Amino acid sequence: MTVERGAIELSVRPEIADLPFSQIRAIAREGMQQEGVIPLWFGEGDDPTPKFITDAAAHALAEGKTFYTLNRGIAELREAIAGYMSGLYGPSIGADRVTVTASGMSGIMIAVQCVAGAGDNVAIVTPLWPNFVGCVRIMGAEPRFVGLDKIDGGWKLDLDKLFAACDERTRAVVVNSPSNPTGWMMQGEQQAALLSFCRERGIWLIADEVYARIVYDRAFAPSFLDVAEADDLLLVVNSFSKSWSMTGWRLGWLTTPAALGPTLEMMNEYNVAGAATFAQHAGVVAITEGDDYIASLVERYRQARDLVFQRLQGMSRVSMSRPEAAFYAFFGVEGMTDSVAFARRVLRETSVGLAPGSAFGEAGEGHLRLSYASSTALLSDAMDRLEPMLS
Amino acid sequence: MTVERGAIELSVRPEIADLPFSQIRAIAREGMQQEGVIPLWFGEGDDPTPKFITDAAAHALAEGKTFYTLNRGIAELREAIAGYMSGLYGPSIGADRVTVTASGMSGIMIAVQCVAGAGDNVAIVTPLWPNFVGCVRIMGAEPRFVGLDKIDGGWKLDLDKLFAACDERTRAVVVNSPSNPTGWMMQGEQQAALLSFCRERGIWLIADEVYARIVYDRAFAPSFLDVAEADDLLLVVNSFSKSWSMTGWRLGWLTTPAALGPTLEMMNEYNVAGAATFAQHAGVVAITEGDDYIASLVERYRQARDLVFQRLQGMSRVSMSRPEAAFYAFFGVEGMTDSVAFARRVLRETSVGLAPGSAFGEAGEGHLRLSYASSTALLSDAMDRLEPMLS
Repeated sequence: MTVERGAIELSVRPEIADLPFSQIRAIAREGMQQEGVIPLWFGEGDDPTPKFITDAAAHALAEGKTFYTLNRGIAELREAIAGYMSGLYGPSIGADRVTVTASGMSGIMIAVQCVAGAGDNVAIVTPLWPNFVGCVRIMGAEPRFVGLDKIDGGWKLDLDKLFAACDERTRAVVVNSPSNPTGWMMQGEQQAALLSFCRERGIWLIADEVYARIVYDRAFAPSFLDVAEADDLLLVVNSFSKSWSMTGWRLGWLTTPAALGPTLEMMNEYNVAGAATFAQHAGVVAITEGDDYIASLVERYRQARDLVFQRLQGMSRVSMSRPEAAFYAFFGVEGMTDSVAFARRVLRETSVGLAPGSAFGEAGEGHLRLSYASSTALLSDAMDRLEPMLS
Repeated sequence: MTVERGAIELSVRPEIADLPFSQIRAIAREGMQQEGVIPLWFGEGDDPTPKFITDAAAHALAEGKTFYTLNRGIAELREAIAGYMSGLYGPSIGADRVTVTASGMSGIMIAVQCVAGAGDNVAIVTPLWPNFVGCVRIMGAEPRFVGLDKIDGGWKLDLDKLFAACDERTRAVVVNSPSNPTGWMMQGEQQAALLSFCRERGIWLIADEVYARIVYDRAFAPSFLDVAEADDLLLVVNSFSKSWSMTGWRLGWLTTPAALGPTLEMMNEYNVAGAATFAQHAGVVAITEGDDYIASLVERYRQARDLVFQRLQGMSRVSMSRPEAAFYAFFGVEGMTDSVAFARRVLRETSVGLAPGSAFGEAGEGHLRLSYASSTALLSDAMDRLEPMLS
């Protein structure tokens, strides 16, 4: 995907000119021009947003909720989120710690803008979906990668490796748990140890917890909020996209120390102004009435996961453990050294669209990511097509 | 509004800790706790989004347009915008030059991210609404202010002053025309001269043209697109907020050289991912069926402008010329040296909410901004209340 750059591209900042084009998007672009492809490349289910949520948005639109609102979000939504978070996690979380953002992505960009600029570095646990790295580079800061280790098909974080990657210019550590793409979940003990390290050094912890509810052996994933004090340097990113099937809405939130509120109010103003007003009203309904929906969604994903895991396990070149969370199979393929080339071959020969592991950092090379947030019929078909190449 | 900063605020980047809190928001915050205030502080009309547009969004929601879409926007909307822009401006503008953004604001942040980082500077024509400055500071770049001159109550740009402010580290010039707050419109000859200067130096021109349709003596304001070549280093920012009364939607677009498209695709991905999918479908309807609405809106604003101008002119301390565009009266007040203190007094003594001129840069001190995108009844009442303080 190397494109020769002309005068226009060269006149943007070097950090921007050098941003790598997403390898996932590159495969998807190719596949979208091909007939009959089963697209399992993106992190998105095939369920549209449930009707009780779209109805709430339509109602808000009809009621004229189309004006600017408070930069940190409407009070009802911040209160609803605070109640939801307090219900899930140990300490009570007040609305003064909640800032609604125009997507989880916007929350990530704002979090990075707050802490890292030129001359700073950010330690990032990988494999990780590529967008954090993009934000860090846009801000002119240096991303430092700390790979999970693959042990017996499962993923483990060596905290000492992470600590060793940090120096006096490290302004933040980024952890995505449950992880996209690996499904890895950081446990409470490690979270507490990392938080304590960050506390000692005055380093921010940016925790992407957007898959908190997409877990299979418990109701929700361990959160840094379980082990943190209210004024720890902790920025937790959440999104409505995954749990409530609202990917196209651009609605998320940050949970932070209350003292950061005025800063985040400005950062929202200068980035997007905030989330769409009527979408926020729909968010209230999602978060207060959405538990049954989440339960049914997770049950569907569980069946999909079991099918995919069982089938992939039976293919001789594949190595993986059963994902505990999120909706991805991130599997190793024996003998595959160039996952982009292999994913492209898979696309051409089987018409199944997968994401190459190297898109998630060096630690992801040798792997492919398959999103199983799809119907079991489609997934069965995909497995049949993949089997010859992976056996 | 100086707030003592604690440990949390100090642990963010110095550029972020030093971001000034909006003086407009500061007044508004105070006024929102006061009974019976006439709020004329924000740049927003009192019309909700018209029904044909909200209906289109509700329809898109019901149809399940709730998934991620292409980062640069859905094809229908990019085509519709390209058609609209080609209809207004000289040269035909292709959809390959259009990128849909999650608000005009997001377009501005992305434009600034593309061109300015630490060590760079950006020349900004003021008085200007404060958000450009916020973006430049967040990116670690230096804003340089070039004030319009007030001559006979009207505003004029001295291009030589602007050229003199640029040096070898200047990466962009920012012009907002029609201007918020002054209503100043840059004319084609000056636009061509500035563009030619930028072309020679390899400096980007970022043109905020969101008030292009809110003009009173012609159908639309002069645009840099009238005088530019397709591959000039020109980023034009537009928004659905003002012309179609869609402030709460977060929908805008950038018009740029086509070669910048792949870069903007990534920048959208890393900032917000893009505008909400169903909002984009509503945007198609707004832009293709909205001309009558715009005409009626402008007619309403024209009446409001005439009323406000006539009344303010009759107050002995006020100096202003009749605004040609946008929906603000930005008037000088004789003897007023601290516009924040004065706006606060106005709020307390008359319950009319105005924005202090210093919020728009040093060049704005001595002025107040009144948004007249309101009913004439409300505006008459506001004028009655203001008269004693301004006469």
